[in-house]
Amino acid sequence: MNIPQLDIDAGTRSGAGVVLATARDAGVDVCFANPGTTEMPFVGALDTVAGVRPILGLFEGVCTGAADGYGRMAGKPAMTLLHLGPGHANGIANLHNARRARTPILNIVGDHTRDHLKYDAPLTSDIESLARPVSVWYRSVARAADLATDTADAIAAAMGARRGVATLVLPVDLQSVAVRGGSVSPAVVRAAAVSFDRTRVERVADQLLGGLPAVLLLGGRALSARGQRAAARIAAATGATCFGETFPARAERGGGLPDIDRLPYFPEPALAALAGRRVVLAGALAPVTYFGYEGIPGELARPEDIVTLAEPGDAADDALDTLAARIGAPEGAGGVPVERWQVESGPLTPQAVGRVLANALPDDAIVSIEGGTCGYPFVTASARARRHTILTNTGGAIGQGLPVALGAAVACPARRVFALQSDGSAQYTIQSLWTMARERLPIVMLIASNRRYGILQTELARGGLPADTPHASRLTLLDDPPIDWLALSRGYGVPAERASTVQALSQALDDALAHTDGPRLIEMCLP
Amino acid sequence: MNIPQLDIDAGTRSGAGVVLATARDAGVDVCFANPGTTEMPFVGALDTVAGVRPILGLFEGVCTGAADGYGRMAGKPAMTLLHLGPGHANGIANLHNARRARTPILNIVGDHTRDHLKYDAPLTSDIESLARPVSVWYRSVARAADLATDTADAIAAAMGARRGVATLVLPVDLQSVAVRGGSVSPAVVRAAAVSFDRTRVERVADQLLGGLPAVLLLGGRALSARGQRAAARIAAATGATCFGETFPARAERGGGLPDIDRLPYFPEPALAALAGRRVVLAGALAPVTYFGYEGIPGELARPEDIVTLAEPGDAADDALDTLAARIGAPEGAGGVPVERWQVESGPLTPQAVGRVLANALPDDAIVSIEGGTCGYPFVTASARARRHTILTNTGGAIGQGLPVALGAAVACPARRVFALQSDGSAQYTIQSLWTMARERLPIVMLIASNRRYGILQTELARGGLPADTPHASRLTLLDDPPIDWLALSRGYGVPAERASTVQALSQALDDALAHTDGPRLIEMCLP
Repeated sequence: MNIPQLDIDAGTRSGAGVVLATARDAGVDVCFANPGTTEMPFVGALDTVAGVRPILGLFEGVCTGAADGYGRMAGKPAMTLLHLGPGHANGIANLHNARRARTPILNIVGDHTRDHLKYDAPLTSDIESLARPVSVWYRSVARAADLATDTADAIAAAMGARRGVATLVLPVDLQSVAVRGGSVSPAVVRAAAVSFDRTRVERVADQLLGGLPAVLLLGGRALSARGQRAAARIAAATGATCFGETFPARAERGGGLPDIDRLPYFPEPALAALAGRRVVLAGALAPVTYFGYEGIPGELARPEDIVTLAEPGDAADDALDTLAARIGAPEGAGGVPVERWQVESGPLTPQAVGRVLANALPDDAIVSIEGGTCGYPFVTASARARRHTILTNTGGAIGQGLPVALGAAVACPARRVFALQSDGSAQYTIQSLWTMARERLPIVMLIASNRRYGILQTELARGGLPADTPHASRLTLLDDPPIDWLALSRGYGVPAERASTVQALSQALDDALAHTDGPRLIEMCLP
Repeated sequence: MNIPQLDIDAGTRSGAGVVLATARDAGVDVCFANPGTTEMPFVGALDTVAGVRPILGLFEGVCTGAADGYGRMAGKPAMTLLHLGPGHANGIANLHNARRARTPILNIVGDHTRDHLKYDAPLTSDIESLARPVSVWYRSVARAADLATDTADAIAAAMGARRGVATLVLPVDLQSVAVRGGSVSPAVVRAAAVSFDRTRVERVADQLLGGLPAVLLLGGRALSARGQRAAARIAAATGATCFGETFPARAERGGGLPDIDRLPYFPEPALAALAGRRVVLAGALAPVTYFGYEGIPGELARPEDIVTLAEPGDAADDALDTLAARIGAPEGAGGVPVERWQVESGPLTPQAVGRVLANALPDDAIVSIEGGTCGYPFVTASARARRHTILTNTGGAIGQGLPVALGAAVACPARRVFALQSDGSAQYTIQSLWTMARERLPIVMLIASNRRYGILQTELARGGLPADTPHASRLTLLDDPPIDWLALSRGYGVPAERASTVQALSQALDDALAHTDGPRLIEMCLP
């Protein structure tokens, strides 16, 4: 692996430089990286091709989750830089979430030199088999002449109609090869045009104005401020109710928007919410149960009761606006004014956490939510908060909340970012804290520390199993030893405080928000 | 997912109980688990089927790495318990290492109910595509009647001629199904018989006694005490030299054994070691470079110069013994007596670390080694130590050292376990510390804290790239912020000390060894 001495002025680039320049010219300006030996020419090129900011993660799941958070907020891809099959494998869980979020990501995976693969050296693995399940597009660059076009194709695929993770494998010899002329992408890659189907608006309008009462189920762009306002107008005019999908990639909330709750997680209340109603999908998928439960249908609505206004990739907000106009719905229905919650003093409860955080949010905050303990109560409370954006765990692969907050903070340096995070799920990508400290990102992390996998104890109970038998309790309790979040946080260079009461949490949030020089962590001690 | 109320006495088990009882009866007695909702019936069954010890990991890579360490030491599989595709994905990197180590593992992955897969719910993914690259065997149980035989087949595959990871996917409805009669495995599953090919011994004997001088390259069972003693006898009698493979799954060392070095990692010294020699493979693969380098052959020895005495799965120790007798090699050649190193006082250096640790090892210690900074100097020094076993990173997927130490400690409660670990690689599975503390495993972790990815700086230099340009240095230095290992360790409930001098390290090791009630961590501050 000899890296050619580059002479950019003379028009020669390394292959890695071609990839980087192509991506940069297409608008990619951040690289969440955990490189190894086979990515060193790429690392070298980051110093010769200006305009892409590399951000180091100590673990690949941090990089892929950050790319997801970045892409959700920036609406364009970040690139990753991962080390062969095993490095990519460590990033799969959060790429799975990104796939479900339809987040564009340029997933760069280094590989052995092309002629080394046949030796089955220790790090050789079937990268394609590992990458396909999370990628809308996959290619391993085969020739130096293809470097620019393959990169452009990858970005086009990430931003295309299927939108998602495009995995581009770069053999190290093609990273270091000298490319004369240094040709880069022929044109800036643009996002696929987003539109909607007007004939569907007509059909839905007819159905809303007669027959079954409706539920509008919102996802994708329908959860923009405009989409939600239009949905609320339609609901007010027709007697429909509105829900957001249970785990939206991104939803606007508060600041006078209508209070559109998420469809409940557990099947019984979700079925009750949809029973006897026509379900209008606006950017959401047809609702199914999260898991299969005996005696409960997997489909939360019967196919014959479902009508699609807009697909997940469509301009669902435009479709809703058009629909609202079509049925003559009055303007300005159902906004919730910004108002502080009165929170009783005393020990912290999940409900109190939700309300205290809702009170504390500054304008245009971003809240990355992972874990049910405080996540649901916060969303219930946050309709009254100032305008903010919530980002949730779209694919159920836990370890998503902290890296998504990190990526969102990189994408939106002018906005305050919060991570409302359960303790169990925080552990999967705990290394996120170090990158937040390194990049001086003023993220406020709130760790709901109840020292258990609460959801699993709930699921044991649902299944008629005791949670207090020796092994079941050992496998769902995290209290032996208790994780010392203050020590852990300081270990990664993040100042931390502990709060056990409403008063202490309010004070800790004030303290954290007074600092803009880096992250802060608050351990919220819950019963 | 309703779990039937079990009545074991009446001969009814849950499907999970059938799997557990079958595995237990085949000798599987440990389950490294990170379960989710789809594994709750399995968790419940752990309380009704006695004899399998569940050990919780906060991250799946801890579980799979621990199963690797356990399997290397116990010679039989542990089981894992992982949550669908994303949970398995977090375990892939260490399963990759286990595959290279030929470690038997029963990799249990829960899945949705069979009839829920068609809905493509958020956690649905292509588990098979994710599992095949690291598995010697893969099956998703299709019918309740197959639960026992599929489990037995999986264990037989893990212990069979290909030896490795057998992935068994358990849909949650088949975990909770009531199985009348509760049939379990028909018979205890035994390891495939291990043997060697005597005609190869004859061929190698002829070649050793004439022609080119030879290198004996040892892997697998050749790195047992008996294998190494036989190899040293052969070398003394024929003028051959001996090397172990560079990254052995397990090698005995010290305690009067001959000093058999590992084949060098970098290609130039490895080529020099093998140049002009016949290479006799005894349980090792044909040597190839770790990465492809321009102008350097991928094969470290020409195929025509290689002769195989024993394949990796063979009884290479028996083959070497037979060969030594065949050529009439005298007994007892080349053992190195146990002797303390004199270590000059002063600031810690990698060489000093290696010697101080070699001096401190009690009899029958196990040393899990990950990272080159102190790993190579320790192995150089440890020929003089008391008898110990080393476990190394076989597949290059980093984050292997701490979990392998954890699994080895579970497998060998009577032996002291050390993890000699570089700081960068420790971060990938840092959650190992919590499980060590929870299980009160008296593991001594030595973290080589040099606050950089040293190997990457070396590789940049090899490639002619500067390591001190802004981005290259930011991507290879871990000093901003420095990780506070003492805080981090205490965060997970592990007492920790810091050592910057030879004297302090010796003292810290003495302190750590005086405790048997749980793990201890020593941060070794290196320049």
